[in-house]
Amino acid sequence: MLYYKTQKEADIKLIVQKYGGTSVGSLERIRAVAERVAETKKGGNDVVVIVSAMSGETDKLVSLANHLSSSPDGREMDLLLSSGERISAALTAIAVNELGLKSMSFTGRQVGIITNAAHTEAKIERITGEAVRKALRKGITPIIAGFQGVTEASEVTTLGRGGSDLTAVAVAAALGADRCEIYTDVDGVYTTDPNIVPEARKLDRISYEEMLELASLGAKVLQTRSVEFAKKYGVPVVVRSSFNNNPGTLVVKEDREMEQVAVSGVAYDKNQVKITVIGVPDKPGVAARLFNVIAVSNIVVDMIVQNISSDGKATDISFTVPKSDSKRTIKITEDIASRLGAKDVKLRNDIAKVSIVGVGMRTHSGVAAKMFETLAKHNINIMMISTSEIKVSCIIDAKYTELAVRVLHAAFGLAETKKEKAKKGKALPGK
Amino acid sequence: MLYYKTQKEADIKLIVQKYGGTSVGSLERIRAVAERVAETKKGGNDVVVIVSAMSGETDKLVSLANHLSSSPDGREMDLLLSSGERISAALTAIAVNELGLKSMSFTGRQVGIITNAAHTEAKIERITGEAVRKALRKGITPIIAGFQGVTEASEVTTLGRGGSDLTAVAVAAALGADRCEIYTDVDGVYTTDPNIVPEARKLDRISYEEMLELASLGAKVLQTRSVEFAKKYGVPVVVRSSFNNNPGTLVVKEDREMEQVAVSGVAYDKNQVKITVIGVPDKPGVAARLFNVIAVSNIVVDMIVQNISSDGKATDISFTVPKSDSKRTIKITEDIASRLGAKDVKLRNDIAKVSIVGVGMRTHSGVAAKMFETLAKHNINIMMISTSEIKVSCIIDAKYTELAVRVLHAAFGLAETKKEKAKKGKALPGK
Repeated sequence: MLYYKTQKEADIKLIVQKYGGTSVGSLERIRAVAERVAETKKGGNDVVVIVSAMSGETDKLVSLANHLSSSPDGREMDLLLSSGERISAALTAIAVNELGLKSMSFTGRQVGIITNAAHTEAKIERITGEAVRKALRKGITPIIAGFQGVTEASEVTTLGRGGSDLTAVAVAAALGADRCEIYTDVDGVYTTDPNIVPEARKLDRISYEEMLELASLGAKVLQTRSVEFAKKYGVPVVVRSSFNNNPGTLVVKEDREMEQVAVSGVAYDKNQVKITVIGVPDKPGVAARLFNVIAVSNIVVDMIVQNISSDGKATDISFTVPKSDSKRTIKITEDIASRLGAKDVKLRNDIAKVSIVGVGMRTHSGVAAKMFETLAKHNINIMMISTSEIKVSCIIDAKYTELAVRVLHAAFGLAETKKEKAKKGKALPGK
Repeated sequence: MLYYKTQKEADIKLIVQKYGGTSVGSLERIRAVAERVAETKKGGNDVVVIVSAMSGETDKLVSLANHLSSSPDGREMDLLLSSGERISAALTAIAVNELGLKSMSFTGRQVGIITNAAHTEAKIERITGEAVRKALRKGITPIIAGFQGVTEASEVTTLGRGGSDLTAVAVAAALGADRCEIYTDVDGVYTTDPNIVPEARKLDRISYEEMLELASLGAKVLQTRSVEFAKKYGVPVVVRSSFNNNPGTLVVKEDREMEQVAVSGVAYDKNQVKITVIGVPDKPGVAARLFNVIAVSNIVVDMIVQNISSDGKATDISFTVPKSDSKRTIKITEDIASRLGAKDVKLRNDIAKVSIVGVGMRTHSGVAAKMFETLAKHNINIMMISTSEIKVSCIIDAKYTELAVRVLHAAFGLAETKKEKAKKGKALPGK
């Protein structure tokens, strides 16, 4: 496994390191980043650094804009928000220079990160990277402002929340980097939220597919799009903490060893609501009309369940949407429901989605059954079920979230054993 | 006089408005700026806005960098510091949009402000302005981030302290604007510092030349280089307050009316020190050697006085430099003085420069004599004298600064008369 080899064995040449908001959140933290960059460089590697805005800065700028306008223009928001990363990039370059290394900061534009024109949620189209390559050839360590790019027409764009992860993975892919390290304030990817299950185990490795499911299911470690990108271009990603020297979690292509384990993690998401349309005429095309209208409004529907109608005349359709879209969706749904001749529309706020994820599910049978059985044993009612090849999700009453996570985590044997704990304590002391 | 005509009479089409740090210092102030822009636009004018960073922001960023390094790289400082103006430009554009106008923010790069590569003190080489012209043609009000440009190689540069004034004047020149309004937290240019002389009179008009002298003599209203630029390209500049509707001071080409007044203002500068080299051999080339060495170190020498040597063998040379360069200059001077065979080098910190300025001096005789006489009458000793066509400066003991300013202001009849005061009170009520 690449990550556990010594650097010489693995012949590592180019490492992309991305530091999140808390990792550059103060002058002290920026100095710590500079020292880690210098150490990596001293280890014989070339380093390219991507930084987020200092923690709290982006929220501050968003709040200023929202005080001036309830719907500030996307183009203006992008110029505004991209400033935070420029500031931390310049400060980090200054700190790295101070350690005697040669360093230069780069904006998204200077790196040549070309995006489409979808302001505040732009998609990367290509990365020229010429200036960064030139800097590397001269022995200069580039510090790149994350989260931003420019359109072909040279307008500044941003990549959406968590966009610096995407910058890092995309730059790593463009430069053919040997790995992309994502530095954050947690030690890596855990089998579940350690705040709920103290015995949650840090995963040494996880597949892109599992990481994708976990990210979209509510685990906040890596932005979904950056995982998709890493998977597409085969970029090995390491998620680790900038506050210690623990090795973190390696996100890579699925391998055989991973299949040995049926379930890798338990995720939960409390940010959804369930909407039920009651008494919908059981005719072809009815569901299509409803979800078409919702899709046109750019609302992402997650789970959908349509009951089998008992009398062949009317049925109920339930679906979930993000909490933030709840009001809009209800309005749209009530409108279309009355036109479809449905009886009623009901909203439930107090729900949660609990999911188990694992590539091993493909080869292990009975995983879903075990999940349902475990929840039933604790009297947790399942309202909706959704499955994919490597995931089973259940919608339950929100008040049972923590209980469900704990019992599932235990049922699938994910907890750290005492032996593992002792071993880890010795081998990887915190800094 | 252009400024006092109604807009229709003057047929004003394009107005450049620059708002300083205090004028965009809070959300409330940014809203006030947006309203003024909207009013100007409603008056049938096209408006181009230049903004500084919100007050305190640039200092905050400089302090962060200085905590990381005692000599941060200029290139990194420029990326860092240019962010402040981008933020206020985006926020101002959002505020203007909110009033129903169409507005767009522009960075120095997007405006096409091309500078040389002298980071942190870059000089504007040319302004393409294409994107701004295009926006104006579409009825969009451009909000430009001041203080910044890019090199031909697309590196971000800044124009030095007060650089947003220069951006405003240069953009006004490039676009052929009808006038350039500089909004600040004072009502305009005064005959002297109102904190010292409460009767100081606001000038309705002042010539570029006088403004230049006043700016370089310590009046902080307009950055020197921006006045030079305005003079070179004949841009009419108005200095006025963003906190009220008072008409401000018009800075224009000298005209006959101005010559009626001998002296327009009294300025002072406490930020200089006097260095005296005692017992310098009175040989040709000695002064040249001394000041060459100082010039090479990028220290700007202001006044120089060489005493006539009484015995033809040795003489004293006195000169003044900015207080911030005092230590460096002493070191250089002591070094060269010993090599020149001089006896001693002395430093005086407690000095001030008091100056009178006025284009009328060219036609009024006896102005300098009256200045010396006035100072003598109050027992203020003059240590050094320097004159130009429209200025007389005297170095005096710093403790007499306020007294000197007051008595000169009175001697040249610059105070506001009671009649004027009453008239102003009626005609131009504060907002």
